[in-house]
Amino acid sequence: MTTAGAPVVRARRARCPASSANLGPGFDTLALALRLYVEVEVRPSERLVVRSEGEGRDLPGDRTHLGARVAVEVAGTDCLDITVRSEVPVARGLGSSAALAVAAAAAAGSADPLAVATKVDGHAENAAASVLGGLVTATIVGRGPVAHRLALDDGLTYVVLVPDRALPTVTARHALAASVRHHDAAFNLGRMGLLVAGLGDRRCLVPEATQDRLHQEARAPLFPESPALLAGLVDVGARAACWSGAGPCLLAICDRGSARAVREAGERLMAEAGVDGRALHLDADTTGLVVQDLGSDRPDSDRPDSDRPADR
Amino acid sequence: MTTAGAPVVRARRARCPASSANLGPGFDTLALALRLYVEVEVRPSERLVVRSEGEGRDLPGDRTHLGARVAVEVAGTDCLDITVRSEVPVARGLGSSAALAVAAAAAAGSADPLAVATKVDGHAENAAASVLGGLVTATIVGRGPVAHRLALDDGLTYVVLVPDRALPTVTARHALAASVRHHDAAFNLGRMGLLVAGLGDRRCLVPEATQDRLHQEARAPLFPESPALLAGLVDVGARAACWSGAGPCLLAICDRGSARAVREAGERLMAEAGVDGRALHLDADTTGLVVQDLGSDRPDSDRPDSDRPADR
Repeated sequence: MTTAGAPVVRARRARCPASSANLGPGFDTLALALRLYVEVEVRPSERLVVRSEGEGRDLPGDRTHLGARVAVEVAGTDCLDITVRSEVPVARGLGSSAALAVAAAAAAGSADPLAVATKVDGHAENAAASVLGGLVTATIVGRGPVAHRLALDDGLTYVVLVPDRALPTVTARHALAASVRHHDAAFNLGRMGLLVAGLGDRRCLVPEATQDRLHQEARAPLFPESPALLAGLVDVGARAACWSGAGPCLLAICDRGSARAVREAGERLMAEAGVDGRALHLDADTTGLVVQDLGSDRPDSDRPDSDRPADR
Repeated sequence: MTTAGAPVVRARRARCPASSANLGPGFDTLALALRLYVEVEVRPSERLVVRSEGEGRDLPGDRTHLGARVAVEVAGTDCLDITVRSEVPVARGLGSSAALAVAAAAAAGSADPLAVATKVDGHAENAAASVLGGLVTATIVGRGPVAHRLALDDGLTYVVLVPDRALPTVTARHALAASVRHHDAAFNLGRMGLLVAGLGDRRCLVPEATQDRLHQEARAPLFPESPALLAGLVDVGARAACWSGAGPCLLAICDRGSARAVREAGERLMAEAGVDGRALHLDADTTGLVVQDLGSDRPDSDRPDSDRPADR
């Protein structure tokens, strides 16, 4: 509905990276931005139009589309022309929803895409990596997300095994125990410290840094080949390996010199295990969210200039 | 017993800092070295002599003394003259045992005082802070401790409330639950990330960074005044506050500009709560263990030079 009092929508393009969250012991906390991107363009329009290219293009292009839901809520109007271009496989544990929510919120003019995406997607750490880039730690304080970058050794690079099967986060979450031994909770804290130190300085990154007792083992029945694949990635030269998000993608953390061999071996390991899919060699994204103002395209002239909000 | 085949003991002096461990969410993982020191001198002797000055001087000066036990085991002989000088209050949560074990092991010639102290004291993170200085993260991998320094903002300084009451770690440990909710285990991971980020850059250190659900609340009945004291320290200007180790010391993390006021207010808060004790303003120690070779004093001449081990 377009009325004289409706918000003025500026045309914007926002791009942000995919992310790998949980990272072994860092359940619901650590995430790493990876160089696969989601781009969302939002332009004013006479009615809602949703176009989708690349990954996720088979999802319904209507107001149920996550990008549309977020953009409409942020813009306060559904008179939007939305284009989504994504390189991020959906429901694989690469933070596609969080990245899409961040990009859609930013393209629709949100001053705080992290808060919007966290509210919509529920994963502050994925959203934080998409906004900030690099390695992030995130948590909820009060009602909103708080996130910070942590040191990330730029000598590290990543191989992601991407199985041709989806594993919805909600399924993966149901696999978790309601309680854990105190000792195991403390174990994860110790391993998380080791991982944070190792990601900041790869010389001290050891395979044990991605050990965890909160999610990976509990989720293994959902992806029975995963333990052998993770061990295999380390055997062929990765410094450490872990689930990416809620899976089924698996992340190998590598030195630059070994990434090519790890990627090739990763494809071989998947084939040997009978897991269809591919292995990607990806660097960390260290830029995070980028928003570009495309000017104030207007499909109509019935909106007073005074209604235009400050560009937040 | 001194025989021709006994190990040759070189005279050494070792000094290392006290430490504050657990640090809110970082249970059994994070520790911070503080500028209170333990110094141990070990010299060859015809029989075991243990002298103790400063804090802990009332402990029995015999072979049951922790410094003697460690030094004798490391040296492989009890023909040692051991002098311990300590500024670290005992059984207060400032890592006195770990620091003493580190200094005694080093003074007796150990190549790996961290491993020795962790084995004796059981707290890798305290021992690691005493060895490495600064902020450390530590955990047990396989059978031994692994520890690394993490970034620590040198604009931070610390106020420690030191009650005039001991709280043995074993008592504090019995207060912990056997299991915790999965959600709470994840909560601690999120807070630990926030704390690590905030200790590395004080501009992002918020009071919530020291919240935890693994030990502080469970131990509060052992020190009923602690919750109000912790809240009070933040109210008077500390960026965050938490238990130090297993208590009863409490640690306030402060900007340099506010430390004096926090220390004075800390003494007032203790007095108002009826807790006898004192408040210390301490900087972080960033040097860790220092070992000085005092030369090869020999009380007797019956040991062949060839038995002298390489200085590890």
